[in-house]
Amino acid sequence: MIKQALIGILCGAVALTVGILIGHYGITKSNGSWAKDVAKDVDESLVEKFLSEVDSSHIRENLRELTKVPHMATTAGDEQTVQLMLKRWQDPDAGLDQAWREEYLVYLSFPDPKKPNKVTVGDPADAVLYTAREKEKVYTPDQDDAEVVQPYAAYSPAGQPKGKLVYANQGKPSDYKLLSETVDLRGTIAITRYGGAGRADKAINAAPYGVSGVLVYTDPLDINDGLMSDASETYPHSWYMPPSGVERGSFNTHYGDMLTPYLAAKEETYRIPAESITGIPPIPIQPIGFEDAYKLICELGGRAAPDAWRGGFNCTYNFGGPGFKSTSAFNESDVKLAIFNTEVVKNSSNVMGVIRGSVEPDRYVIYGNHRDSWVHGAIDPSSGTSVMLELTRVLGRMVKQGTWRPRRSIIFGSWGAEEFGLIGSAEYTEVICDQRRNARSFSAANATLRASGMPSLQNVIFKATKQVDAPGLGATSVYDNWIRYANRTSSAHGPIPRVGYLTGAGSDYAAFVHYLGIASMDISYTYDRSKTNARIYPAYHTAYDTFDYASKFIDPGFISHQAIARTAGNVLIRLADSLVLPLNCSDYAESLEDYLNTAVPLYQSKLQAQGISMGKQPLKRAVASFRSAATHLDQVIRSSDLVRRINDQLMLLDRAFLDPLAFPDKYAYRHVIWASSSAGKPTFPGLADAFANAELTVGSWARVHYHLSVLSQAIEGAAHTLADVI
Amino acid sequence: MIKQALIGILCGAVALTVGILIGHYGITKSNGSWAKDVAKDVDESLVEKFLSEVDSSHIRENLRELTKVPHMATTAGDEQTVQLMLKRWQDPDAGLDQAWREEYLVYLSFPDPKKPNKVTVGDPADAVLYTAREKEKVYTPDQDDAEVVQPYAAYSPAGQPKGKLVYANQGKPSDYKLLSETVDLRGTIAITRYGGAGRADKAINAAPYGVSGVLVYTDPLDINDGLMSDASETYPHSWYMPPSGVERGSFNTHYGDMLTPYLAAKEETYRIPAESITGIPPIPIQPIGFEDAYKLICELGGRAAPDAWRGGFNCTYNFGGPGFKSTSAFNESDVKLAIFNTEVVKNSSNVMGVIRGSVEPDRYVIYGNHRDSWVHGAIDPSSGTSVMLELTRVLGRMVKQGTWRPRRSIIFGSWGAEEFGLIGSAEYTEVICDQRRNARSFSAANATLRASGMPSLQNVIFKATKQVDAPGLGATSVYDNWIRYANRTSSAHGPIPRVGYLTGAGSDYAAFVHYLGIASMDISYTYDRSKTNARIYPAYHTAYDTFDYASKFIDPGFISHQAIARTAGNVLIRLADSLVLPLNCSDYAESLEDYLNTAVPLYQSKLQAQGISMGKQPLKRAVASFRSAATHLDQVIRSSDLVRRINDQLMLLDRAFLDPLAFPDKYAYRHVIWASSSAGKPTFPGLADAFANAELTVGSWARVHYHLSVLSQAIEGAAHTLADVI
Repeated sequence: MIKQALIGILCGAVALTVGILIGHYGITKSNGSWAKDVAKDVDESLVEKFLSEVDSSHIRENLRELTKVPHMATTAGDEQTVQLMLKRWQDPDAGLDQAWREEYLVYLSFPDPKKPNKVTVGDPADAVLYTAREKEKVYTPDQDDAEVVQPYAAYSPAGQPKGKLVYANQGKPSDYKLLSETVDLRGTIAITRYGGAGRADKAINAAPYGVSGVLVYTDPLDINDGLMSDASETYPHSWYMPPSGVERGSFNTHYGDMLTPYLAAKEETYRIPAESITGIPPIPIQPIGFEDAYKLICELGGRAAPDAWRGGFNCTYNFGGPGFKSTSAFNESDVKLAIFNTEVVKNSSNVMGVIRGSVEPDRYVIYGNHRDSWVHGAIDPSSGTSVMLELTRVLGRMVKQGTWRPRRSIIFGSWGAEEFGLIGSAEYTEVICDQRRNARSFSAANATLRASGMPSLQNVIFKATKQVDAPGLGATSVYDNWIRYANRTSSAHGPIPRVGYLTGAGSDYAAFVHYLGIASMDISYTYDRSKTNARIYPAYHTAYDTFDYASKFIDPGFISHQAIARTAGNVLIRLADSLVLPLNCSDYAESLEDYLNTAVPLYQSKLQAQGISMGKQPLKRAVASFRSAATHLDQVIRSSDLVRRINDQLMLLDRAFLDPLAFPDKYAYRHVIWASSSAGKPTFPGLADAFANAELTVGSWARVHYHLSVLSQAIEGAAHTLADVI
Repeated sequence: MIKQALIGILCGAVALTVGILIGHYGITKSNGSWAKDVAKDVDESLVEKFLSEVDSSHIRENLRELTKVPHMATTAGDEQTVQLMLKRWQDPDAGLDQAWREEYLVYLSFPDPKKPNKVTVGDPADAVLYTAREKEKVYTPDQDDAEVVQPYAAYSPAGQPKGKLVYANQGKPSDYKLLSETVDLRGTIAITRYGGAGRADKAINAAPYGVSGVLVYTDPLDINDGLMSDASETYPHSWYMPPSGVERGSFNTHYGDMLTPYLAAKEETYRIPAESITGIPPIPIQPIGFEDAYKLICELGGRAAPDAWRGGFNCTYNFGGPGFKSTSAFNESDVKLAIFNTEVVKNSSNVMGVIRGSVEPDRYVIYGNHRDSWVHGAIDPSSGTSVMLELTRVLGRMVKQGTWRPRRSIIFGSWGAEEFGLIGSAEYTEVICDQRRNARSFSAANATLRASGMPSLQNVIFKATKQVDAPGLGATSVYDNWIRYANRTSSAHGPIPRVGYLTGAGSDYAAFVHYLGIASMDISYTYDRSKTNARIYPAYHTAYDTFDYASKFIDPGFISHQAIARTAGNVLIRLADSLVLPLNCSDYAESLEDYLNTAVPLYQSKLQAQGISMGKQPLKRAVASFRSAATHLDQVIRSSDLVRRINDQLMLLDRAFLDPLAFPDKYAYRHVIWASSSAGKPTFPGLADAFANAELTVGSWARVHYHLSVLSQAIEGAAHTLADVI
């Protein structure tokens, strides 16, 4: 086991929504006590009190309760967790001011319990020579629960393709291209390993070559540091994935309910025809364990695959002849997939709760975490939910006792159906988007060793992590521990912990960032990446992500959970109570300058050849405007009493980066700085992608120029948001 | 002359932008005097003072100065008016706090002064039998100014088509369809009259039938109540258009600079290729006077056109054979157009000025008016500019003397290049859109006899008009006079003056309403429509719209100008100074209910047949939610001290009606209630159009259902904006 490997509250984004609105001018009541309330700042003794009351044993018991049964979205187990959340948040002594359920009718995909998906090897006479496991091996009673869903690829179409097997590495476009140069892929079944490309992409990229079905597995090299034996090496002996473990997942590209793009999925809402959905597998695909993958891959014929394609198996990874080698018992055999997934429209619930603000009740800080899992989901997502419940217990008690009420309102969200594509949180933002006065927030997360977010939030994460002890390290703070594992040198601050960027759509922050333009963060305690190559904790999306696993191998004393609860709560209190919002725009400027400094050498000379100016104007000028406005605002914050105005400037900064027309080909992406990008460059995403496409002559230089105008205009606008009023 | 015919400050929209941001919490300075300032409401004695200081003779002299020379956009005359605005607004004794120029590089279209456009009749041997006038007849030295631009159709392509003439009424699709049933239109020249269809549409609708060129004129029936003789009947004897008068205009469909859709037209901005512009004439088109139209139409052969196609000429309006009748001297002759228009990209200026707010300097009320004209533009737009200058003189003096400073900032805009498609104001909103904290306003206008705006603004217009004397009517108020001419019975208020809706894109309010979702109004003094059929004042866009015309026939004592200045200023002061914004959401609810009550009988049964529910849910439910939230907010406003919160709710209401995806086929329209519509029904525009298209099988029922979801969601969202915080 890895010493530093701790929990990842993977999806526990603390979303801090600050509404546009504002509270009292206190006209009739403008007496002394009102003025005192209005001017009240964060109470550090209250922060101390909060930190001391967070209790790891409560978190442990929360997790035990949440993971009693599998709670995949819309199942009976999911409903049990809905009831649990409502009961806790409506508790008269330690609940919130109000809690309720919000339902959406959403498009999901499930295997058929009566007709399980099958993967077999059949000889030319159709005799079955080998059958892959349909369920994961049982080590604790958890895996034996009848409600454990069979491993499957959600949104894979049903179908029964068969064909000669080939190995396609990670299923990237370049992988299929290379493979097709040696092997005729028409009618084949491709086996791929997780990583390198999105889940759905492994099938989407295969289809143009005539591949008829795809398998996907987790290679022991990518998750287990090569270890494969459950006799001594893997769970239940360690945190590593057992040979029969299978990562489930949603095989789609867009986020939110796929039948109601940009609309809240209510009963009467218009739905697009299912045939119009894009970004899902066009051919059947099924995930299997590495135990089965080993049996298939090591028997493949054909030429040896390149070194980079090799995983952890102790055999040669061949391309496939196509099919198996002549010396194999599977010689001349086909691999057959029998997939019986069905799509259904079902009600999924978000559970929402609120602590009302005292001075600015119409501004919101949102703290959210998804509730649904694939199986028991002890780490993903229940570690986050157990922390959120402890946090609301401590804060709720203070509110009920009358010892505290935040300046701004805090909304808590327990999102449904995240695993199927961030559905609950995205539908929430589609509602909220038409309730635009709520449509601002910055989302933060339960900071420690690993944090991503808007650069402007870096400062408050640092502040909070310095006040929380690192789990198991005595007087060392989370901050001091963090900087050892991930750091960078800032031009303004010197060496500091590295806060990542929230690019793409990895979790529930996506709709808040990309659709609403709300400053957000996502934070977790994670493991020491210098000691393992695991790309994620090994039980991710398997039947082994259980209370047993979490309490034995991830966080035995629940002290990391406790540290995260303390950090997240600390950030939350600061965002809810600070007179001036603790957002630092100069740190945002530093990130934009980094982007610019990456972009100029990459693109400038080629763009100049196209007659498009980039380096000096207008992009460089826009970034300089932003820096200058940020510096000025820093001074104003130090000297001014215009608190309300400043807070609005801080709050609205990310909104200025939204442009609904910036990414005409990318569903629901509007944020010009943080949108997803396929170019893989640490710079402005739309510019990088447009440039890459123009070079490949897929796109045009005019589109690069167009995006450059959009981008420069957005940054100038953001600078203007920070500038003084006219 | 018509007694009630007064000025129309046609484009004098008072745009009231309230920024999202907010001023002091006054932390360090929270003493008594600060609290008093913050709570200060409209000072009625100040309103009185303003009303008494507005002086009609100043307005007259402003107009004289503004109309000395033609000031078409980007000409030397336009630059003179830029300098005048800057001089006045920078005046140390009666100017604003600050004034400046903002330039945009925009796409314009002009005739060639060296090669004037020509319309001739030529016989089969190519001898010219008739040439239409190239310039309007000279009655005052104004028409003789070398800078008077030749009548032309801006954005008409150059070209020299010739063909047999046909008469196509107003150039509507139904007109060309009817005509084509009798006459083969291929290769013909169509003559049309103004009205019934957009300017560009007269050519766009013709092209599919093979028409090769179009003429357009103003029929005396539509503008002059049939009068045609300049010996005694028309200008210079009255306000009527002389026989040689020609309405110029912009022949385009979209608004804003056409090369930079959704982007501010700066130097480095990406521009689409000119070939990609849509919504402009595909074939040459040219406007002519009715003197020339008379000569052509009365000679036409073919069958007599229907009664509805007849105008004011004392001859039969025939379809055309095609071509002239055999008894005509023009028998067998062609009509030939020689159009030499060229497109250029030129710098156009907005002049901007500001009076900074004292308590909420980061909230804006915008008052705007365009500055450019086609020729001298005495009424359109200089009457509005002359009123704006008087208003800023009086307010500016109070500010400079230290007797007043508005609670919120007031921005004044003198827009450039409106005549070419609302370009200056639209480019301003494209900039401001990326400076989103400014992106709120409600625009009002110089209220009197005629007003259009968001229903929520009705109340403040009524209040202001009750305090201003109607011009020339002694103690009768503008309100009491107005209600005699245009009234309706409101379910809440009983008989009241009729305030129109700002649908479509008639003037500079368009980008504020449709692109930014800002409550706006547009108000003017206009003539008695019961005494004339003129569709607009007759000198509109001709060389006769001069100071002479305005001061003799429109408003001899400039007392209507004075009344408008008083009304507009009164509204402006109320919007800038009111503690609670004077917006009434229950009046908005009444308009939505009117829309719903129109829509249900029109659409419900057919939609039910398609399986789409409309009447009960969700649209009816959404409108009911809105009504209920508006009623509740009215109560809260009466009882609460949460002034800031309420103002934000009021301010953000119209933003909630925006959806950038609501009208995928309509450029820059986002407001689901006020977008333009071609269905001609007084109800929700997108629903009406989608329904009409589905019935014609141009569109689909799915699109109706989609829009119904968008619309219901937007109204629910607007209701939520009015509701209490969570």
